[in-house]
Amino acid sequence: MALKARVLYDFHSENPGEISISENELVTLFNEEELEGWLEGENSRGRLASSLPPMWRSSGTTSPPTGGSGGGSFHTSQGSDDDWDDDWDDGSPATDVPQGLGSTPPLYPVTSSLPGRRESTQQHQQQAKSSATVGRNLNRFSTFVKSGGEAFLLGEASAFVKDGDRICVVMGKHGPEWQDDPYPFTCTIDDPTKQTKFKGMKSYMSYGLTPTHTNVQVNRRYKHFDWLYARLVERFPVISVPHLPEKQATGRFEEDFISKRRKGLIWWMNHMISHPVLARCDVFQHFLTCGADEKAWKQGKRKAERDELVGANFFLTISTPSVPLDLQEVESKIEGFKTFTKRMDENSVVVNTTINEFARKQAAGFKKEYQKVGQSFKLLAQAFELDQQAYSVGLNKAIADTGEAYEAIGEYFAEQPRQDLDPISDLLDLYRGHLANFPDIIHVQKGALTKVKDCPKQEGELHDRCNIISCATLAEIQHFHRTRVRDFRTQMQHHLRQQIGFFQKITAKLEDTLQRYDDDQ
Amino acid sequence: MALKARVLYDFHSENPGEISISENELVTLFNEEELEGWLEGENSRGRLASSLPPMWRSSGTTSPPTGGSGGGSFHTSQGSDDDWDDDWDDGSPATDVPQGLGSTPPLYPVTSSLPGRRESTQQHQQQAKSSATVGRNLNRFSTFVKSGGEAFLLGEASAFVKDGDRICVVMGKHGPEWQDDPYPFTCTIDDPTKQTKFKGMKSYMSYGLTPTHTNVQVNRRYKHFDWLYARLVERFPVISVPHLPEKQATGRFEEDFISKRRKGLIWWMNHMISHPVLARCDVFQHFLTCGADEKAWKQGKRKAERDELVGANFFLTISTPSVPLDLQEVESKIEGFKTFTKRMDENSVVVNTTINEFARKQAAGFKKEYQKVGQSFKLLAQAFELDQQAYSVGLNKAIADTGEAYEAIGEYFAEQPRQDLDPISDLLDLYRGHLANFPDIIHVQKGALTKVKDCPKQEGELHDRCNIISCATLAEIQHFHRTRVRDFRTQMQHHLRQQIGFFQKITAKLEDTLQRYDDDQ
Repeated sequence: MALKARVLYDFHSENPGEISISENELVTLFNEEELEGWLEGENSRGRLASSLPPMWRSSGTTSPPTGGSGGGSFHTSQGSDDDWDDDWDDGSPATDVPQGLGSTPPLYPVTSSLPGRRESTQQHQQQAKSSATVGRNLNRFSTFVKSGGEAFLLGEASAFVKDGDRICVVMGKHGPEWQDDPYPFTCTIDDPTKQTKFKGMKSYMSYGLTPTHTNVQVNRRYKHFDWLYARLVERFPVISVPHLPEKQATGRFEEDFISKRRKGLIWWMNHMISHPVLARCDVFQHFLTCGADEKAWKQGKRKAERDELVGANFFLTISTPSVPLDLQEVESKIEGFKTFTKRMDENSVVVNTTINEFARKQAAGFKKEYQKVGQSFKLLAQAFELDQQAYSVGLNKAIADTGEAYEAIGEYFAEQPRQDLDPISDLLDLYRGHLANFPDIIHVQKGALTKVKDCPKQEGELHDRCNIISCATLAEIQHFHRTRVRDFRTQMQHHLRQQIGFFQKITAKLEDTLQRYDDDQ
Repeated sequence: MALKARVLYDFHSENPGEISISENELVTLFNEEELEGWLEGENSRGRLASSLPPMWRSSGTTSPPTGGSGGGSFHTSQGSDDDWDDDWDDGSPATDVPQGLGSTPPLYPVTSSLPGRRESTQQHQQQAKSSATVGRNLNRFSTFVKSGGEAFLLGEASAFVKDGDRICVVMGKHGPEWQDDPYPFTCTIDDPTKQTKFKGMKSYMSYGLTPTHTNVQVNRRYKHFDWLYARLVERFPVISVPHLPEKQATGRFEEDFISKRRKGLIWWMNHMISHPVLARCDVFQHFLTCGADEKAWKQGKRKAERDELVGANFFLTISTPSVPLDLQEVESKIEGFKTFTKRMDENSVVVNTTINEFARKQAAGFKKEYQKVGQSFKLLAQAFELDQQAYSVGLNKAIADTGEAYEAIGEYFAEQPRQDLDPISDLLDLYRGHLANFPDIIHVQKGALTKVKDCPKQEGELHDRCNIISCATLAEIQHFHRTRVRDFRTQMQHHLRQQIGFFQKITAKLEDTLQRYDDDQ
């Protein structure tokens, strides 16, 4: 069925396969499916099997189109809002694209093998899953729409922004940056304690958090972290909210899981407090500082859930440097970062696989080899012990000790990865969460940039708003790089120090063993 | 066919399955095959399917039986001397018994996978092969016979012994010992040089030997070592002559083989010069000191080959402590040593297999794992290098350096076994050669002991001669233990020092790498 559509504004073809169209021209669409933001159809100058730019006001947002702002409705026969989601469920490679920020039921079973899986934030499960294909989002406009980026760009955002909510992007040495948090703080997470309620019918783990700026401990459950995470994600469309350590249904009270989750939460907290915007936002502060007063907690909770400055309105809170960014430079930086994240993601997978395999080998093969050598030395000592002449005894004992030293070294190898490989693996997991966030962030910026480039008439306000999105995106990218360099430097140093300590421990063990050979000469 | 035989002296049964027989009694043998020194048959008091002790003068020696010395002939229908050897060639498990000291052609193909294989000393190949079954010699009397032990015991040895040929066994703290060599010396073996003769038609490797007591270098080929070895073996029936490193037909000029053989010859030389009897014997001294004078060399060679003090006559050269050894104590010591060698041999096989496998794992798996980690760190650095902001560059370089450090550590692991596992393996090979020698040595002593125990009448001279054999055997065992304790202590210390150095090298590499992370902070 051919569909007719009216063009909203002029578009000049720049590449083969595109056709130039004019405002108010009637065009025929071959079908209503959009591919990477393009539609197939022809115009009055004859059939051209080529693409039409998607110059319509999408129906994906709930607010009505504002006729005068350049973004009128392009009415195709497309159905309800939900249809937007259907595109991701057609079995094409696009199944790995994010589901946006809605709360539709998960389309895929929840797996626990990847970090940051949570039922309540299933869209991020998809993102994490997609992380190996960063940049392959075929529906970039949908994220653009769902994040509120489009609505903001088209001037539809409207809310009252208090001074306290204002977020400053400043021009730093390396480009736009989030203004530093003037009141930096840290926060410790204690070993969790097991709590019960309903007279012991239900038990849960409670984490004691002590932020340095209040120095008062508050107790939080994992579900509170989870709730907070969901608030932050809807609040900050172009900020990469660190993924929480994975939710796990069974074995929640097992020591290994508890220790792993605590380590994960410490990493998460570390990234929260070192992010100038996340660290000082109201909902996080409420989470960190609200005491045992149930009423106060509920009040803050309701306030956060009713926060108006989410989605499109978030962008209203951003102040930018006075000089707008150069569009081309922004585009090139974003492209560079896309390439960067893609490569980092791919190579992180290799590193993670390799070091996990290395850890496994140390716990299995390396340990086994050293222990087999140890056992064989002990066998030699046992044979030698059949000769109990005075001058033999010392050697027999020393060889047996050498055997034990090798067995111990085997144990050292098995235990070591926990100290120096697991932390790198944890860090890579955390970063793979960020890398999974960035395609959406980039798509918001790209959506804005594309719209601006397609509408040369719309300079002025549209450009200003695009600049705000670009500044926020670049500030977030800059923050990512700074944190990355800091974290990987620290972690690689930690790894090397641990390895040095490990080999020194082996050396000391062998030196001690060598002494035994002198004892009785 | 039933065989009749006349009993030479009384025997009283001590165990079920044995029958008592009297001197001059006629017995019927069920067959002429001897099993562990026993024959099956019956006597005049009816058929008893039991064993007869082998109380006959075997036909394995060439000198005629001396009627008055208690060891008359026991005539069965057995054939020529050669038949004695046939026992070892009947496909029974006894194929792993030594062939004695004769020079029959090799019964088995020469393999190169075990140490100390040589065509000219094929009986030792069998011994080495048998080393896993030390003590299972079913034909112990044959070695006793071939070594000359029996002839000596029966008073048939006769030769003129010069003072210089006299070998003293003294009573030490731990029992009989070879008297220390009053003029100890050492001997270096230089890197071999390739020599040619027949105008380059034939080439061979020549080893420069410099003994410290002359400080004059002599040049010897492997075949000279081989000739010397054969002389020593026939000269010293109860001394464990160290096996030479294996002969190899192909690849004789390849670096690895040359280096391995030189190491083997150094070990061999070390054992030769530290043996008080071997070190000072004429043929070895001739080998070490005779210069380029062809005539002098041939003269010494002929003299050695015509040496009368071989086999039975060797025992004439031995002086013992004045108080004879207690037979029971000797027997218990010998039994203990048999158990010892058996266990040491078995466990040496395990140690050797384990450390060779460990060496292989280090060269393959360990190296691969470290290199894979190194490569993955380099991949991470490559991803990070896509961000070339000033504050990233130092980290990128440091991570790449870490990758290289891990690759280097992989190489260290691959190279290390040559330093600290191969020497242990070489030592174990040398000792497995000794362990393969001892069953024959023990059988000589056991043969003597059995004969003495069976002939209570024969006290006096027979006992004295048995005491000489026992003293020599125990002195050799004592020497074995002393050398073993010395060698294994030294080698284990060397191994540990090398391992310590190895882990220190890794630590230094990692410390150096850690520095890179500070360079630009």
